[in-house]
Order: sequence, then structure tokens, then C-alpha cells
Amino acid sequence: MTVTLMQHTSLTICAHAIRTCWQSFEKSDGGGEKDRELIDRVGNKNKHASTLEHLVYTFYIQGISRACLQELARHRIASLSVKSSRYTLKELKAEEEFKEGDWERAKRYLVETESEAVNLASLKALENLRQVLLLGISNDMAKYCLPESYKTELTWTINARALQNFLTLRSSKSALWEIRKLAKTLHEALPKEHRYLFCLNQEG
Amino acid sequence: MTVTLMQHTSLTICAHAIRTCWQSFEKSDGGGEKDRELIDRVGNKNKHASTLEHLVYTFYIQGISRACLQELARHRIASLSVKSSRYTLKELKAEEEFKEGDWERAKRYLVETESEAVNLASLKALENLRQVLLLGISNDMAKYCLPESYKTELTWTINARALQNFLTLRSSKSALWEIRKLAKTLHEALPKEHRYLFCLNQEG
Amino acid sequence: MTVTLMQHTSLTICAHAIRTCWQSFEKSDGGGEKDRELIDRVGNKNKHASTLEHLVYTFYIQGISRACLQELARHRIASLSVKSSRYTLKELKAEEEFKEGDWERAKRYLVETESEAVNLASLKALENLRQVLLLGISNDMAKYCLPESYKTELTWTINARALQNFLTLRSSKSALWEIRKLAKTLHEALPKEHRYLFCLNQEG
Amino acid sequence: MTVTLMQHTSLTICAHAIRTCWQSFEKSDGGGEKDRELIDRVGNKNKHASTLEHLVYTFYIQGISRACLQELARHRIASLSVKSSRYTLKELKAEEEFKEGDWERAKRYLVETESEAVNLASLKALENLRQVLLLGISNDMAKYCLPESYKTELTWTINARALQNFLTLRSSKSALWEIRKLAKTLHEALPKEHRYLFCLNQEG
Repeated sequence: MTVTLMQHTSLTICAHAIRTCWQSFEKSDGGGEKDRELIDRVGNKNKHASTLEHLVYTFYIQGISRACLQELARHRIASLSVKSSRYTLKELKAEEEFKEGDWERAKRYLVETESEAVNLASLKALENLRQVLLLGISNDMAKYCLPESYKTELTWTINARALQNFLTLRSSKSALWEIRKLAKTLHEALPKEHRYLFCLNQEG
Repeated sequence: MTVTLMQHTSLTICAHAIRTCWQSFEKSDGGGEKDRELIDRVGNKNKHASTLEHLVYTFYIQGISRACLQELARHRIASLSVKSSRYTLKELKAEEEFKEGDWERAKRYLVETESEAVNLASLKALENLRQVLLLGISNDMAKYCLPESYKTELTWTINARALQNFLTLRSSKSALWEIRKLAKTLHEALPKEHRYLFCLNQEG
Repeated sequence: MTVTLMQHTSLTICAHAIRTCWQSFEKSDGGGEKDRELIDRVGNKNKHASTLEHLVYTFYIQGISRACLQELARHRIASLSVKSSRYTLKELKAEEEFKEGDWERAKRYLVETESEAVNLASLKALENLRQVLLLGISNDMAKYCLPESYKTELTWTINARALQNFLTLRSSKSALWEIRKLAKTLHEALPKEHRYLFCLNQEG
Repeated sequence: MTVTLMQHTSLTICAHAIRTCWQSFEKSDGGGEKDRELIDRVGNKNKHASTLEHLVYTFYIQGISRACLQELARHRIASLSVKSSRYTLKELKAEEEFKEGDWERAKRYLVETESEAVNLASLKALENLRQVLLLGISNDMAKYCLPESYKTELTWTINARALQNFLTLRSSKSALWEIRKLAKTLHEALPKEHRYLFCLNQEG
């Protein structure tokens, strides 16, 4: 799993938005300590959460599973463009057979779990999929025997308010192990000076 | 795949909302022909699409695949509560082994495609999943070797404006065969007197 | 200010949505005590707030000010159809002149504040508006001298999750007096058996 | 009315999002003609409108009326932080009396319409408001006699898909004159290389 931050809004934009409400531009220090404190106080402590929406991040998320994607997609206040399983399965056709010992090669397509048995079942499913594709069966049919461990990737644009909701819920101990890992990786991919606005569930 | 309409708003509510804008309550015929024409004219022809949002439908959708769910979930202006693959996989433990000829029994868990090879690959994945579960491996790991043909169900609440967008996009010829079937089934599940507000892509 | 609840979803729909996730239909008591407790526990305490979105309410809100409407409209996860100031100002043309003592008659068009001076200023603006309209000036120009105390009405559809956010924020002591009154009135207009899911800011 | 574009996403981000779906990164020309054509074809012609959501713009809009703000706020898929009429009315206290001939000075606070009578009525309301404030009446009361011509400003963040909807609806001949002017000004404030993705209603 890798997360690349492709673009983000500067904190100064969010400070400007907040100062628009109170017409307090003259108090700005151009994104310095005063503006940073203002954003946290107004956006988080005083719950004017809409001001945080002016901070927008685009992440390129690679190597998460289709299972994890199902959960990420439940966060509807975000924009996601996902590697299509209808148009990109042909990548498997060029592969050799996946035999039981081929996990190192299969890992290019499958997310590894801590269960050998599950990984093996995924690998078998991958091989069955490869054979189905070699029979010339369309992706629109073949995708039905995709194992949910199958790796996918997406470009994901989300504002700070929705990202806070994601990180809080998905870094909790009760969240699925992979999406907890994604929450942590996303937090680490944030610009350092933005991280103070986001917190991970400590028990995560 | 079955779709049950569990609740819907009466057309009179939408007519009332429109008449609020123009204060034309005296022209109402209590949801009769005049009100129905008003809704179509204002909400569709004159593009005041927000007035259609007062019409809200809750569907109980059963027997669609996890693959189809991935596409349905891209429609973010809707509320979905989905059968959790983290809490409901144990249903498989009580099953006997799934051998190659057991498609009739496997169909309880898997969506059938028109490709025998894909169905067989799904059945094998189902059996592997069953064995993984019998080993006592947690659902949070086992779910990674779920085939995307695995059946799921959800309770889905959506307003008329977002449903129009869904039906238009997903009844098109270029849409995935299963979600096109879902679009058609949803349209048929609508109250007869509401269907005039929705159209399916004719080339679908 | 009057609020009429025009339609709402039954609690059983929300319980059904939650039971879809855990496939626990057999535990349902058809919207009784067990289902009610389930909704509160899952939707509120366990923060699966999306399950509450299946509860949808349509209110007919009358007699709030344009000033209050500005604040209500900031709650974007809701559908609002508002009495149009572009199409309904002619109602004033039939009125006699509004003189200083005519507050009782002016109250049909203006929200009263606790400040006599403000009410008088609003009344003068109302009279100026009436004269502008009598000159045959279009609503699209005349609406610019509307006082923000001018009464409006709307049909408003919102789900329980967004309504909780509205009621919590807008019943707080720091909220504008009129929208606090609206929050209270909305809460009272809720079906009795739904109110336990919503709380008003006690210091409100 | 002035509109300043404070930040915007680069077209390359949107091209990257689209290429994520088809894994066609190797065809990219780094935001050149091929990427620009791809964005228009996929996002507009092929109606994959969600890909356009990765393009996000923040505008600082100054000098529009509270009347215009009411209409802008109906576009709910956007983030707006508005000059608060609860915290910024004191600006008027330092002003001299507004007499009938003082429109040049009053224009600092009021949007001018093409109707002298309306402008005069607004000016009278402005003076009444000034006097109310000088009496020490709180903003939460005084704001009720604000004329809707009163100027406001906001920081507005919106994605390309929602902005297309705004520009199409609000540049139409049937839209309010001021919001049509805002639509045109917003379009002109867009980066030149982005404008090809947006069109104004030609009859506007």
C-alpha cells in the first residue's frame, strides 16, 4: 500500500475563509502561528467544521484491496476515480501460471493477509481468473471471480472535514485492519504543517 | 436479484414543495393530474431538479453481487446499509462441501454469470472460503478470498433526483450487465404513479 | 413561526436497515422497544450515523425570516424549496400604506424582534417596498430593498443524521435567537416516538 | 462585484485521476493537449462527471448582495464561508448619516440596481440600520432590518462538476440579473486553460 499526496490546499486559504466571516484579515500572519491557531480553534474547537472544507487533498492510493475499497467508498463526501476492473484485467493474461509457491509473484496482484490459508485461497482464485481470461471471456464476466484481495488503486480527492471523519472512524480498533493501515498511511502522507488538524484514534 | 420498495414519499409532498415556491397551493388537485404534471414540468423540463429531492424511496435490494455493490456505491448521494462481510460469513460454515456439480446449492451465495468457467471459478473460491472459515480464521481475514460474485444485500434510501441519475447512467448499454438489470428492477419496483418521472436508457 | 411535519419514515425502516448489516432480522420486534434501542445504540452510541439517514422527514416551515433562511441554508445535506421572492412579492400590492402604528398588520409580512427600533425600521422598509412595487418595478429589482425580517416559508426534507447536526448546532446558546426557536419547534414537531434520537443543547 | 481565484487544482491531477481508471498513464503528455482532450471527452462527453470533481477551485467573491447570496447558497455541493452579519455590522457605526443624495457613499454597503426607487429605498433602510446600531442594539436584532441589497462577501470552494451546474443554471436568461453577472465573472476568473471545460448559457 502506498499513498502519494498529489495536491493540497495551502492553510492560508482556510485562514482567509475564516477571516472572511469575521473580516479579521488584518490579524493574519500569512499562514503563520496565528493563522494555524485560528484554523484549529474555529474549525475544530468551535465546531465551525465547514471552514475546514476549504482544505482539499488529492491522494493517489495504490495497492489496497477491493475489500478495502468497498469500505473506503462508504465515505461519500469525497471523489474517487478507481482502477476499473472492467477495463484493466488483461494485465493478468501475460502472466505465467500461479502455482502454490508463487506468492511472491502473486503479491503484485493480491493483498497479503496474516493468514496463509486465505492467501493460498486468493492465489488459487487468481490462477482461476487468469485461465478464465485466457479463454477470452470478457472482463464483465471474468471480474465475478475476482478475489476481494485483488489489488486496486484510485485517485481520491477529499476535504479536511470529511478526512477527519474518515481518519477518526477508520483508525479505531474496531475498524478492519487494512483500512486502519490506510488511515495511518494517509495521515503520514499529509503535509507536516497540516497534521495538527487531524488525529488518529489513539487506541488504533 | 429482488428489489422491495419499503417506503416512499407521496407525490403530494413534492407538489406541495413546488407550490411553496410559487405560493400556488390553491391550484393543487391533491396529487391528481395537475399536481403530477406540475412535478414533471418543474422538476424535469424546467430543471428545478432540487424539488424532486423531496421524493425519497427506500429499497431493500437482495441477491446482487459484491461486484455490483462496488458500482452502486459510486452513487454517493444515497444512503446504504449493507450486509457486512465482516459479521455474516459464518453462514457458510453450516454448508456441506461445494463440489463442481453443486452450482444449484452454490447459487444461494453466488451470482450466476453467463460464463460457465467464471461460475466454476466462483464455486471453487466459495469452497476455499468455506474451508478457511472452518479453520476458525476470522472474517476480517477470510473476507479477502471472497469472490466478487458473492451475493450481498442492502437497504438503500435515495431521492428521486439521485435515482434519475442512477437509472439514466446504469441502464445504458455501456453499463455492466448486472447493474443494468438492477436499474430495470428498481424502475419496476417504483410505485406505478411515480414511474413517469423516471426513464430508462432505451438503448439499454 | 409554525412547523408542520408533512411526512416521515417509520422507525421500522431504520431498524431494518441496521438488521441488514448484521442479518439479525429474526431479533426484530417490528419497531418495538428492541428495535428502538437498536437504532439508538448503533446509530448514536456506536456512531454508525449513516444508518440514521434512512429516517427522512419533510417539514413545512412557515413564518421564519429571510435572515433565518440564510442560516438554515448553510445546512447543505437537506432539500429546500423556498417561497420565491422573485415570484411572490405582488402579495404586498393589495395592502394599504403601512404607517408607524401598523405593526399588527405588518406582522403578516415581518418577523418581530424584541427591539422596537428594529421593528419600526423593518416596517418602514416594508412600506418603501410596497411603494416600489406599486410603481410597477419588477420583483427582480424590488427584492433588493426587502428587509431580512421579511417572512418566508419553505418545504424542507432532511434525514435524521443531518437533522441531529442542525438541532445540536442551532439549539446552542451562541446560535441566533430565531434559529434556536426554529430548532426547538422542529424538535417538538417530530413524532413523539422519534424524539429520543435527537437532543437539544441543554444550555440552549 | 469582484471575484478572485485564490487556488485551483492543476488539470494534470484530473488527467491522472482519469488515467487511474484505465491505467493509461503512459499516454499522458503531462497536462498537454492529449490530457486536456481526455478530460473533456471523459468528464463531459462520456458523462463520467465524477472525474471532474478532482478539479477544485477556491474563489474570494466580494460585493455581491445578500439577495444574491441566498441564491448562491442553494448550490449545496460547495463550501462557503460568508462575512457574518452577526459580527460585522459595526462597520456602519463610523459612518455619517446617509441622506438621499449619498448613494456614492452608500454604494460601499449596497448593491446598485437599475431602479432609482429601489436604490433609494435601500439607502433609507441603510440609514435606519445605522441609527439602530448607534442605539446600541445588538447585531442579532439589528440584522433584521438589513436590506437584501446589503453587500456581503465569501470564500467559496467548489469542484468543477458542481461549478458546471452553477454556471449552466445561473447564466440562463431566466436567472436573476445579479447571479448571471456573478456566473460570467466566475467564468472569467477561471484559469484560461480550464475554461474550455465550462460553458455559459449562450442566450444568457
